[in-house]
Amino acid sequence: MKKFIYGIDIGGTTIKFGLFTTDYTLLKKWEIPTNKKDNGKHVITDIVFEVQKVTPNLDEVLGYGFGVPGPVVKDFIHVCVNIGWKNLDLRSELAPLLQNANIRVGNDANVAALGEAVHGAGNGRRNVAMITLGTGIGSGIVVDGSLLEGHNGSAGEIGHLTVVKDHALPCNCGKVGCLETVASATGIVNIYRRLNQSFADSSILDKIDEVTTRDIFEAAKASDELANNVVNEAAYYIGYACHVLGVTTNPSAIVIGGGVSKAGQFLLSRVEREYKKLAFSPGRNTEIIAAELGNDAGIYGAAGMVKQHG
Amino acid sequence: MKKFIYGIDIGGTTIKFGLFTTDYTLLKKWEIPTNKKDNGKHVITDIVFEVQKVTPNLDEVLGYGFGVPGPVVKDFIHVCVNIGWKNLDLRSELAPLLQNANIRVGNDANVAALGEAVHGAGNGRRNVAMITLGTGIGSGIVVDGSLLEGHNGSAGEIGHLTVVKDHALPCNCGKVGCLETVASATGIVNIYRRLNQSFADSSILDKIDEVTTRDIFEAAKASDELANNVVNEAAYYIGYACHVLGVTTNPSAIVIGGGVSKAGQFLLSRVEREYKKLAFSPGRNTEIIAAELGNDAGIYGAAGMVKQHG
Repeated sequence: MKKFIYGIDIGGTTIKFGLFTTDYTLLKKWEIPTNKKDNGKHVITDIVFEVQKVTPNLDEVLGYGFGVPGPVVKDFIHVCVNIGWKNLDLRSELAPLLQNANIRVGNDANVAALGEAVHGAGNGRRNVAMITLGTGIGSGIVVDGSLLEGHNGSAGEIGHLTVVKDHALPCNCGKVGCLETVASATGIVNIYRRLNQSFADSSILDKIDEVTTRDIFEAAKASDELANNVVNEAAYYIGYACHVLGVTTNPSAIVIGGGVSKAGQFLLSRVEREYKKLAFSPGRNTEIIAAELGNDAGIYGAAGMVKQHG
Repeated sequence: MKKFIYGIDIGGTTIKFGLFTTDYTLLKKWEIPTNKKDNGKHVITDIVFEVQKVTPNLDEVLGYGFGVPGPVVKDFIHVCVNIGWKNLDLRSELAPLLQNANIRVGNDANVAALGEAVHGAGNGRRNVAMITLGTGIGSGIVVDGSLLEGHNGSAGEIGHLTVVKDHALPCNCGKVGCLETVASATGIVNIYRRLNQSFADSSILDKIDEVTTRDIFEAAKASDELANNVVNEAAYYIGYACHVLGVTTNPSAIVIGGGVSKAGQFLLSRVEREYKKLAFSPGRNTEIIAAELGNDAGIYGAAGMVKQHG
């Protein structure tokens, strides 16, 4: 009798476990540190150990879904730099240890998008894109209920969309002017630094030594002009990224998550305004909505992959 | 005994028929004018008449694929302005007339992309995008062998990607600065007109009354500086559109078709150069290739939909 599904989100720092019922209710969640020694080979045994501890009768498990921090094509992991994995067939490695249950693997940003699509803000929609605005920018695209992976697993890399021509700053990826340089937490501070140089009036932010994105949003909410200029410019770029997702994949909703999205409707309403200006008319009804699952999106999405194919 | 598949490309002017074997070899192709009277209701009877004439024994037909000029979701046609159709379930209309064979319907630009992906330049690839540069710009995206439709059938509308900020011209869609205003046949002439205003030297094009895109490419091939500036700018925008398709859907190849693409490798090598500069590293190996099927892409793709699901 199958009772459980696991959603497991493997990150560079922690491995998050979600134990779900087969109808997708979260029963229990917990995390363990990621042991990256020896090119990450302990990660597999650590996962099996946790699973056996919590559900000793493995016959009761319908399947296991995994989100991993690297490109994945058809459950095969090309590389996970943060863990030390390369060309890993996680499914084949785990199958004998987990009684050949249904095992599914996806890229973590894609899997989080699936979590939000099926169980979070997307509320069961079949066509959803997600942009996660954190220290970096992740994104994932769900097409007709399934993850879009692309030919080598790098679909949904909207953080490296080139959006800036003038004043383009270098990105961690080696290019210049990527979305990540103007819409991540560090990117929004980049915009502040540039606009501040030529801003003639005074700003609340002048008194702060190390201005953060949070400071900028707080100042903008207090009607600070410089801060509002920064937020408007960031909102333009995020709205443009939504436009790009719209004309290519035509989702019914675009979910915005990550630390930056904590600014809430204050930011999203501006992103939506920019999106509506740019959108091709059949795509204008795509909704821009806030993520709901936070750090749990990964475990929900990972479990969701199993359910889909189970 | 099933012997045949039909691929039928319904346009505003003609209906193109392709009769294929079940292993996808084209046996015969022909076309008839599109009778748009009475909101296009004669189109259905005209198609059935042609099919019965060519293959009187309908039992021998495995299925019928259709490309139509409008948004389609799961074989349901929302609207075809050029024909007069609205909310048409073509499959249900045709099924009783065609002995309930397997019937598949897709948007024409998407279906053409599928044709190039499975049988043309894409040579059987599973993840391909296509941009058709004609009077307007069409595009289609094939993901894991299937058409990406989106939530309301407007996926792959790259012609209405906003790419121009300064000097943005109005587009037929009501927006300004769309790819179509700078990379379609008329769009490339738009670039010429703008650059010509501030070009100080003489150009081969000065002697021509009504400069066409073809004139521009011929002059550029003859090393005309103004013409080369125009081609380089258009190539940048097409390369940028390829970048947008790359970071969203990660195809292994992007097929460039339509009248403008007749400029061949002269244009494509420049598009590829721009693409490589913009691409995120995992997407840099996406190939930019020329379409091969020309006007037959639609019938191949339409037949391909049947084969896929048959």
